[in-house]
Amino acid sequence: VFDHINVVLIATTHSGNIGAAARAMKTMGLSRLTLVNPKTFPSEEATARASGAQDILENARVVTSLDQALFDSEVVFGASARLRNLSCPCIPPREYAEKIIHEHTGRNIALLFGRESSGLTNEELDRCHYLVNIQTTEDFYSLNIAAAVQVLSYELRSSFLYAQQHNIKDSNKLDITTESDEALASGKSMQHFYQSLESLMVEVEYLDPKNPRFLMRRLHNIFNRIRLTQSEINILLGILAAIKKYLSHK
Amino acid sequence: VFDHINVVLIATTHSGNIGAAARAMKTMGLSRLTLVNPKTFPSEEATARASGAQDILENARVVTSLDQALFDSEVVFGASARLRNLSCPCIPPREYAEKIIHEHTGRNIALLFGRESSGLTNEELDRCHYLVNIQTTEDFYSLNIAAAVQVLSYELRSSFLYAQQHNIKDSNKLDITTESDEALASGKSMQHFYQSLESLMVEVEYLDPKNPRFLMRRLHNIFNRIRLTQSEINILLGILAAIKKYLSHK
Repeated sequence: VFDHINVVLIATTHSGNIGAAARAMKTMGLSRLTLVNPKTFPSEEATARASGAQDILENARVVTSLDQALFDSEVVFGASARLRNLSCPCIPPREYAEKIIHEHTGRNIALLFGRESSGLTNEELDRCHYLVNIQTTEDFYSLNIAAAVQVLSYELRSSFLYAQQHNIKDSNKLDITTESDEALASGKSMQHFYQSLESLMVEVEYLDPKNPRFLMRRLHNIFNRIRLTQSEINILLGILAAIKKYLSHK
Repeated sequence: VFDHINVVLIATTHSGNIGAAARAMKTMGLSRLTLVNPKTFPSEEATARASGAQDILENARVVTSLDQALFDSEVVFGASARLRNLSCPCIPPREYAEKIIHEHTGRNIALLFGRESSGLTNEELDRCHYLVNIQTTEDFYSLNIAAAVQVLSYELRSSFLYAQQHNIKDSNKLDITTESDEALASGKSMQHFYQSLESLMVEVEYLDPKNPRFLMRRLHNIFNRIRLTQSEINILLGILAAIKKYLSHK
């Protein structure tokens, strides 16, 4: 789905970062990598760090100018860890992802990542339609380039999946609290459980039968919050039954 | 602002990943790192990859068990690149960030990251209240551990800034899950509870000590699903203690 997204790494000096970037891309379903004047490529270090994303390295285009890298790009996003005084709009990653998915659907996109030491030059920034600012803390903005690729790839996929889910499932919010298909414990089972627990507590003298209310309320509060399934309440009832049986045999 | 977030790396084998994780944390304002049985630490490789986040490495706690790592954790999130067949809620990163910021404001949080090769073990998963699923593509889920730390740190900071900008206050969001201000049960209390419950079940012959895993997993799933407060866990511990005392006197 992201074949039209071209990740462009400019003048990368550490080969390991190229491999790590390829791996980051692949986890999120990106595949198109362009290297502008990499210091060393291919390299063992890149292959090692790619860890299974070797195909992306093999298919990477290596070029000598940004013009070549952007030859078919319709919209260019530049990654920046710092806010810059520029007239080009500077947006957060979530907005960048939404722009790609909703506003520039199907267009050829380029994501530019600058040098490890100094980022993008002014000339490179001039090629960008948007700057994507991955907001770091003010006192430490040294975001690794492969980490930046990971964040922007992740945000793209995450927003894509989010959009997909909300188109397909509209208002049908997932209930992840309990296993989806299993029946929840019935009111009857829950009452059985509370009565069983109460009588056990009375038997072991933890609960004063003359004044059970407060404790039982706390316990209702706990177990109602869980929304137990039927098989779970059966386990708890089984435990209580086993304790009682054991007490009666002793 | 994220001093209460404890990043826990379990049995990391590649030293470079520890450094890269520290760097990823620092860019996003996280500072608290705990290493459970790292293969090598400290190391030159970690320091090199930390690239300015050396202070996080210097202040890292190195421990030999997950119990030590989670001793003060109130809510535990486990990172997972794959969806798993578990009833512990599996949520996307954005929801995880919102939970930390709005639902569990100020609570001690642990983020668990498993081994490079095999992730989190079942026992480690049992300690999690939530699994955070960074959704990769289906055919390549090999997310680097430092990249995962970067994504979850980024999402936390991103959601925090978003909430700040939109002036979303904690109290505006409904919190029906826990009582408002009360401390949650610590990891230590929860372990005490599970151990106590397990030994009781063995004593009354409900649980076969030779094969306790499945049942204990179900029970973890039940009680981890809600965030018990400290006073609630005290009630449950009190019930177990009363039963045991009664059994021993009989």
